[in-house]
Amino acid sequence: MNSISTQPFSVNGRDYAPAQRPIVVICLDGSADEYFDAALARDRMPNLKAMSVRGYRGFARGAMPSFTNVNNSSIVTGVPPSVHGIGGNFFFDTASGEEVMMNSSKFLRAETIFPVAARAGRRVAVVTAKEKLRDIFASGLFAESASAGSHGPTGGIAFSSERANLARVETHGIGDVEPLVGKPTPAIYSGDASLYVLWAGVALLERHRADFLYLSTTDFMQHKYAPETPEALDFYAAIDVELGRLQKLGAVVGVTADHGMNAKQKADGTPNVIYLESVLTEKFGPGFRVILPITDPYVVHHGALGSFAVVHLPPGQAADPVHQWLMQFEGVSEVYDRATAARKLELPEDRMGELVVMAGRHAVLGRTPEYHDLKAIEGGLRSHGGRYEEMVPLVFSEPLNPVYAAKASGDPRNFDVFDFTINGTH
Amino acid sequence: MNSISTQPFSVNGRDYAPAQRPIVVICLDGSADEYFDAALARDRMPNLKAMSVRGYRGFARGAMPSFTNVNNSSIVTGVPPSVHGIGGNFFFDTASGEEVMMNSSKFLRAETIFPVAARAGRRVAVVTAKEKLRDIFASGLFAESASAGSHGPTGGIAFSSERANLARVETHGIGDVEPLVGKPTPAIYSGDASLYVLWAGVALLERHRADFLYLSTTDFMQHKYAPETPEALDFYAAIDVELGRLQKLGAVVGVTADHGMNAKQKADGTPNVIYLESVLTEKFGPGFRVILPITDPYVVHHGALGSFAVVHLPPGQAADPVHQWLMQFEGVSEVYDRATAARKLELPEDRMGELVVMAGRHAVLGRTPEYHDLKAIEGGLRSHGGRYEEMVPLVFSEPLNPVYAAKASGDPRNFDVFDFTINGTH
Repeated sequence: MNSISTQPFSVNGRDYAPAQRPIVVICLDGSADEYFDAALARDRMPNLKAMSVRGYRGFARGAMPSFTNVNNSSIVTGVPPSVHGIGGNFFFDTASGEEVMMNSSKFLRAETIFPVAARAGRRVAVVTAKEKLRDIFASGLFAESASAGSHGPTGGIAFSSERANLARVETHGIGDVEPLVGKPTPAIYSGDASLYVLWAGVALLERHRADFLYLSTTDFMQHKYAPETPEALDFYAAIDVELGRLQKLGAVVGVTADHGMNAKQKADGTPNVIYLESVLTEKFGPGFRVILPITDPYVVHHGALGSFAVVHLPPGQAADPVHQWLMQFEGVSEVYDRATAARKLELPEDRMGELVVMAGRHAVLGRTPEYHDLKAIEGGLRSHGGRYEEMVPLVFSEPLNPVYAAKASGDPRNFDVFDFTINGTH
Repeated sequence: MNSISTQPFSVNGRDYAPAQRPIVVICLDGSADEYFDAALARDRMPNLKAMSVRGYRGFARGAMPSFTNVNNSSIVTGVPPSVHGIGGNFFFDTASGEEVMMNSSKFLRAETIFPVAARAGRRVAVVTAKEKLRDIFASGLFAESASAGSHGPTGGIAFSSERANLARVETHGIGDVEPLVGKPTPAIYSGDASLYVLWAGVALLERHRADFLYLSTTDFMQHKYAPETPEALDFYAAIDVELGRLQKLGAVVGVTADHGMNAKQKADGTPNVIYLESVLTEKFGPGFRVILPITDPYVVHHGALGSFAVVHLPPGQAADPVHQWLMQFEGVSEVYDRATAARKLELPEDRMGELVVMAGRHAVLGRTPEYHDLKAIEGGLRSHGGRYEEMVPLVFSEPLNPVYAAKASGDPRNFDVFDFTINGTH
């Protein structure tokens, strides 16, 4: 008999009182609501359809910028980037003068829900597609991972489908992923990289090896395929099968996304880019440093082109004229000074530049034409990062209780998803 | 035999080349995408489902502010408010010192598509729920209605369901609405006020009295009922029946909305309002005038509370400190000075105040507590006007041709709907 702990716990000011059922929270990377719409209209997601009628389907507001690391960090901590500190994949460390990638839990300023749930008796498993997120998710679970909490490692399971075959008991809490899932480690640039995450979740639940799961996919498919393409429809149909299996295994399932996804092209099919470093240098002179926090080791998705940029000004350059001038670009939707960006976009002020720039629904921001390898996105650019990729789906397998139904009709955030799944459905 | 004109025509810089089929464009007032989702998940909109698979379903970006007059004016002219001049239901005329309601076509600075289509041989019919919109829609059709064009009246049909029984041939192009529709004039505060618009459209098409129709409903139901309520589901099921009938009659059907709709309440169910005139007066002293361009004669919908406001400053008051101070309110999403608002939100600069303020997904802006009659919205406040009600559905009954499919995947606007319906589906 595998008993499931109902011991309540608290993380970052939120109280969680879980029912005696497995909890599964899924973050479908880049899953704009249109993907659900297209698949549902073609009867390809019967389990999602049933969830939305029996449980709940609506929209949630994500964290800005609408990027993967930022929003996954918010989801697993339950707090905005201003608190957890991950405001992008990259930031410019003005002290060291270096551009720093934030793929490590050492940049995380808040404890995640996982070690706390584990200490409350939950058997935690975190499965991600991209290895880059594993260190943040594993924070506090193993001796090797730094943690913002003050306790020792709790144990649990945390691995990526990208490196499923490299998972070891000592460092990942599991050493037999491939036999467990019954499939070999997938290629990262594939739909299977994401489906593998869900297959692993089902297998872990089935073998009673976890009862508190976070499954976080990757958006290779959404970057590459529009919602109504056969590839996207097949992908979502395969996701739906696993949504059904998780529920059949007794889990309460909560689904959200880290960000949406929009085509960012001109009429001729080329990327619709404003090269900020180029235009700023031409207008105001040299010394601008533009950080594109979408930049990560997986450039095939987006060529490091997203709809959010941080601008570090040259010494002595006043911010306001640059701010005003950037607002004149048709593709620029919003520009904020650092303090305003920190307040209105809930960003970590010390990891931002003097200005924050967002692009509209069909535009992205770049550094210089030379900086970006557009070969990677010859098939067309779909990307995210700005305000028009902020709203994401929020779906639950169970009906919401009155308190959470009221919350859902207000301004729910995607990083409320653990709160809703645990507290809102019983 | 009723032949249908295929003569091309141009309006406000756009060229239209209609096929020999009836054209029906529908604006479902306040129809946030969630209404479709909820009804589709419960199999209540089979015709919409078929349209979205055979034709197209996606999102379009509306005009700001996300209000009815603004967006309907954009839809019928094909241009943003900066061109057609209707930036709200109300503006403050600084010359006369009066707050002016813009329900009249005399405020419209661009010709609508209707008289031009009529001159090209199309039999035009415009049916709206609210009488307030009729004068703008009828512009150029009858001798009584002022027109931005230079031609004489063209004839056509234009009436509201609210005053269906008062339509006369000389002034409305039709005098027998009730016998035609087979139902009495509906109450304006009802779902039938909107359904009547669609019933009339079907009847006009059936009797070959029109082949170029614009059907614009009212959002009483959406203000009052959330998407998953039985009342909303029944309403959308009834809309779906008419979508089917219009297609059976051979029409190409395009559907969009003027704006979305969100709950704007606190956890206790009371309206989540920032009373701008009150807080500004307390902070900066007297003399502020706050215009709420949602204000119209139909206050039962929303109590004049929306997520967009225009601020006229007292003489001598600098804009920037007020701008910065307003940005500190959690419920305020964006603030712009007049020139920036005109450029980024495509607003008519001469009809705006010194500052434009938008509220977030769950907040609205008011003048003073005394100004608003909250009794009208005791059942709960759902409203619109800001950025979070900007994205609306865009649906077509026919597959889009490659050029318009590409446009649809970019940044289509709701006021492209005539262009898409006429040019994009053949």
